[in-house]
Amino acid sequence: MPLLVSGSIGIDTVETPFGRADEVLGGSAVYFAFAAALFAPVRLVGVVGDDFPARLRDGMSHERIDLAGLEVRRGSRTFRWHGRYSPDMNDRRTVDVQLNVLAEDGPRIPPAFRDSRYVFLANTHPALQRDLLGQLAGPRLAVCDTMDLWIKTQRAELLKTLAAVGGVVLNDGEARLLTDRADLVSAGREILGFGPRFVVIKKGEHGALLVTADRLCVVPAFCSDRVRDPTGAGDSFAGGMMGHLAAAGRHDVEALKAALVRGTVAASFTIEDFSLNRLRTVGPEDVQRRIDAYMGMLPSP
Amino acid sequence: MPLLVSGSIGIDTVETPFGRADEVLGGSAVYFAFAAALFAPVRLVGVVGDDFPARLRDGMSHERIDLAGLEVRRGSRTFRWHGRYSPDMNDRRTVDVQLNVLAEDGPRIPPAFRDSRYVFLANTHPALQRDLLGQLAGPRLAVCDTMDLWIKTQRAELLKTLAAVGGVVLNDGEARLLTDRADLVSAGREILGFGPRFVVIKKGEHGALLVTADRLCVVPAFCSDRVRDPTGAGDSFAGGMMGHLAAAGRHDVEALKAALVRGTVAASFTIEDFSLNRLRTVGPEDVQRRIDAYMGMLPSP
Repeated sequence: MPLLVSGSIGIDTVETPFGRADEVLGGSAVYFAFAAALFAPVRLVGVVGDDFPARLRDGMSHERIDLAGLEVRRGSRTFRWHGRYSPDMNDRRTVDVQLNVLAEDGPRIPPAFRDSRYVFLANTHPALQRDLLGQLAGPRLAVCDTMDLWIKTQRAELLKTLAAVGGVVLNDGEARLLTDRADLVSAGREILGFGPRFVVIKKGEHGALLVTADRLCVVPAFCSDRVRDPTGAGDSFAGGMMGHLAAAGRHDVEALKAALVRGTVAASFTIEDFSLNRLRTVGPEDVQRRIDAYMGMLPSP
Repeated sequence: MPLLVSGSIGIDTVETPFGRADEVLGGSAVYFAFAAALFAPVRLVGVVGDDFPARLRDGMSHERIDLAGLEVRRGSRTFRWHGRYSPDMNDRRTVDVQLNVLAEDGPRIPPAFRDSRYVFLANTHPALQRDLLGQLAGPRLAVCDTMDLWIKTQRAELLKTLAAVGGVVLNDGEARLLTDRADLVSAGREILGFGPRFVVIKKGEHGALLVTADRLCVVPAFCSDRVRDPTGAGDSFAGGMMGHLAAAGRHDVEALKAALVRGTVAASFTIEDFSLNRLRTVGPEDVQRRIDAYMGMLPSP
C-alpha cells in the first residue's frame, strides 16, 4: 500500500554533549521517510528553497523513497533549525530557527501520488494539513502530528483536522495542552472524542502510549547507552509505525501494536548518530535483530 | 521461602488533587509488606513509638504478615510525614517530617526471623542496613533501597552496604546522583560494579529499568486513569517484586522479569486510593486479572 508523507525538509545544525553537526539534512518528512522506508516504499512531499545544497539533495536519495513530490522553489530559502541539547539530553533549546519556505504556500501533491492509501501529515498549520488531505483520492488511513503553537493559536482549525484523520501522533506536553488533562490516559480518551480512532502520545525517552476506544498500549523506548543525538526520534517513530501499517495494509489494534514496535526500533537507530547517519545504514537484518532485542527487554509473566 | 522486610512505619498525612488523608498508616515497611503478602508470607521488622494509635496497629493486621518484629518503644514517638502533591502529581513537597523513633537506635531482628532467606532492607542509614543484615543467618538474597541523603553524606558506608547485597532498588535521581551519569543504563552498570548482581532503577510513572551484567529489562508502569495517591508506589513495587522472588525461590533474569510484573501490578493497586485502602482489598483473582491486563498493554511483535 503506497505511503505518503508531507512535512518539513530542513538544514539542521545540532549540538549535543557528543558533538556538533553543522548544516546537515533534517526535517520531519526526511526522518519519517527514512524510517518508514525500512518497512514500505514511501512518497515524500515537501518544499525546499533554491539554496538547498546538492549534497543534501543527494543525501535524500533512497531506492524506496519517491522524491517526485519534492519541490525546489525558486527564490525561496530552505527551512533552517539550530538546536542545542542539555548535558542530559532531556531538554533542548532552539538557538536559531528560520521558517523560510515553510512560511510560504504549502506543497502540492503530484497527481501520481493522489492514490496514496496511507498518509502521514507531519506538523504544519492544521488548515494546510486538511488542504493536503483534500488533494488525495480517499486514503484508507490518514494520521497527523501537530505542535503547541497550533494548539494555542489555531485550536478551531486543529479540531477540524482531528475530525478528518483516523489517527493522531503528538507528544505528552501537546496532549496535556490540547485537553487540559494531566493524566495521559484521560487526555488520550478526550482526543478520541475529537474524531481520531487512535491516539499515540509520544513521551520521548519514556516511550509512547497508544489509546483507542477500548485498549491501551504502553510502549517503552528501546533502552540504550548509545544515544548521540535525539533529533528526529519522534518523526522516525511515526515513520516506522506508519511504514509497518502500510506494509500490513491494516490498522487494527494488533497491527498498531506491532507498528509501535517498529516505530520504537526505527527511532532507536536514528538517535545513535547525528542526522540520518545511522538510520541510512540500517538493513533488514539490523531491524529484525533489534526487534528481537527489544522484545527481549520487555517484562514477561 | 520466608521474606523479611525492615523499614519505616509511619503516620502519614497526604494531600493530592483527589483529596486528603490525615494521620493514616504509611511507611516503607508497611507498603512493602502488604504488596509482598500478595505473593508470599512476610516478616516485618520496624519500630513505632508508644503514641502509635491502636487503629493503625489494627490496620497492620494481615494473615500473611508476621508482626513479631514490630517494636513499640516506650517513651518514643512514631515517625510522621506530611506530603502534598502537585496538581499533576508528578512532584510532591514535604510539608512536615518528624523522624522521631527513626532517629534513635534501629530495630532488632527477632530470633525467630533470623533464618529469613529473602530480605529487603528499605531505606535507612546504610550502616544500620548492614547491621540488620549481620543479624541474619545467611540470606539467599538481600536487596536494599537507599536515598539521596545517604548518597550525599554517607557514600563510603553506602558503598560497603552495596558490596554486601545481591540487589539494589533505587530511583532514577538517586542512580544519577550515585554515579554522576545521566544515562540510566550506564548508571546501572556502574552500580553493578559496586557489588550487586542486579540494579532496579525506579522511574515513577515511567516504570522501571532492570540492569544486570548481560541483560536489560524495561518495565513500563501500569497505565491507568485511576491514580488518587502515588504514596507508597515504590515500596509496593519492591514488595511485589520481592514477594514473587521469595515465592519462586530463585532470582535469575527470568524470575526477575516476572517479579517486576508483580511489582508493577502491586504498585498499580496502591496508587488507586490513599494509604493501604486499595491494596488491602486485593485478592488473588484481582492480581491475576491485572497481570493479564498489564501483559495485554505491552507491545507485541
